[in-house]
Amino acid sequence: MNNPTAAMIVIGDEILSGRTRDSNMHYLAKELVKVGVSLKEVRIISDDQEEIILSTNELRKKFNYVFTSGGIGPTHDDITADSIAKAFKVKIGVRSDAKNLLNKYYKQNGIELNSSRIRMARIPDTAELIENAISGAPGFKIENVFVMAGVPSIFQSMVDVTLTNMKHGSPVKSKSIILNLPEGEIAEKLKAMASENPEFSFGSYPFLRDGMLGTDIVIRGHNVKTVEMLAQKVKETFSIKTESDDE
Amino acid sequence: MNNPTAAMIVIGDEILSGRTRDSNMHYLAKELVKVGVSLKEVRIISDDQEEIILSTNELRKKFNYVFTSGGIGPTHDDITADSIAKAFKVKIGVRSDAKNLLNKYYKQNGIELNSSRIRMARIPDTAELIENAISGAPGFKIENVFVMAGVPSIFQSMVDVTLTNMKHGSPVKSKSIILNLPEGEIAEKLKAMASENPEFSFGSYPFLRDGMLGTDIVIRGHNVKTVEMLAQKVKETFSIKTESDDE
Repeated sequence: MNNPTAAMIVIGDEILSGRTRDSNMHYLAKELVKVGVSLKEVRIISDDQEEIILSTNELRKKFNYVFTSGGIGPTHDDITADSIAKAFKVKIGVRSDAKNLLNKYYKQNGIELNSSRIRMARIPDTAELIENAISGAPGFKIENVFVMAGVPSIFQSMVDVTLTNMKHGSPVKSKSIILNLPEGEIAEKLKAMASENPEFSFGSYPFLRDGMLGTDIVIRGHNVKTVEMLAQKVKETFSIKTESDDE
Repeated sequence: MNNPTAAMIVIGDEILSGRTRDSNMHYLAKELVKVGVSLKEVRIISDDQEEIILSTNELRKKFNYVFTSGGIGPTHDDITADSIAKAFKVKIGVRSDAKNLLNKYYKQNGIELNSSRIRMARIPDTAELIENAISGAPGFKIENVFVMAGVPSIFQSMVDVTLTNMKHGSPVKSKSIILNLPEGEIAEKLKAMASENPEFSFGSYPFLRDGMLGTDIVIRGHNVKTVEMLAQKVKETFSIKTESDDE
């Protein structure tokens, strides 16, 4: 049983320069797990038309869905919508459905629809709008690509709208076991368990806490009972002290 | 004056599944700004040999430096070193220089060098070792690719070692001005300033705070005096209330 796959493109110089720490990727990753869509790749790229076109065209062919965040505002450095139109070789211009959404929102909130704001109604031909309850300006979906805002609260509300309308897979169940043992002590036995259970993934994630190396073992698979049984087996094998959450 | 460019590859299913929030990218981004290297792209990919080979070969040709994090430990899911060797079409095996480093560290700390740990001495031919003061097992540099650990404290110490030996550019100066105005109110004047000063970048980053949209303007360039002069001009143009840090 193969779940649908997805990629994300984070468009933003401010993240590459270390000024801002991206939070949209982490939000999307957690929401996709819940609906059984596998996030396979994330690219963080700069506000550059060629790079946006290149990444969009590579990833939309490789994965079932692509989500973008950032670059759909009213300023000169907001070039995502135009770049996506170029990637799909479709025209772009101010669309009346998008302008109506802006008009309605701005009227309600006493904001002037000036020429900069009208830029946010530039939407590629054939795209469907994604509504934005928070600040009016819509995102859009074109084929399998979902173009969304970079401001975290707006991004999140667009993701929530979007995922309810999407083909879902079977949610992956996981169980995590925290071991106070370094990976080097458990690697051999863990490898044996992983090769005996090829339908389940056995992730091994080292951490350093108070100067001591430990390991977080994460077992994943579609059958929740087997995941739990395997987690129990890991615990018994390594006679373990603490246990973390499951999802 | 063009600074050297860099890309990063974060290797880790645990980040794509939303279980862990990556912090290595943010650390590297900030350190690269300090030494004048421009981080141009980050890819977060899964623990998959083909994906590691593909991203490594694409990015090492496109940028001056590539940094990877994750997947160099002793467990079955640590496949980065072997994948990098394949990307470069060189042999890989247990190397005596790496084994000596492990031996020395483990002897000092009373740890057994078992068969799983010896796996961490598997280093591609022609690679130079990157020492790991924290847990012994080295990273490595092969041509322009730096392969480092995923555990944040170890990654950070490897970055610090690495950047001191690297060709640096001229650090980019930046100044940020926080405006309590939405982008839609400032876009036109900001665009004019940006096109009058093509050697400087004028980033515009919207935020939502207490239900109000605001904008963080970031001016970047090599000439610190002009950056400050332009920031002053932005402040005067929008008669602004608060100001944030510069770097």
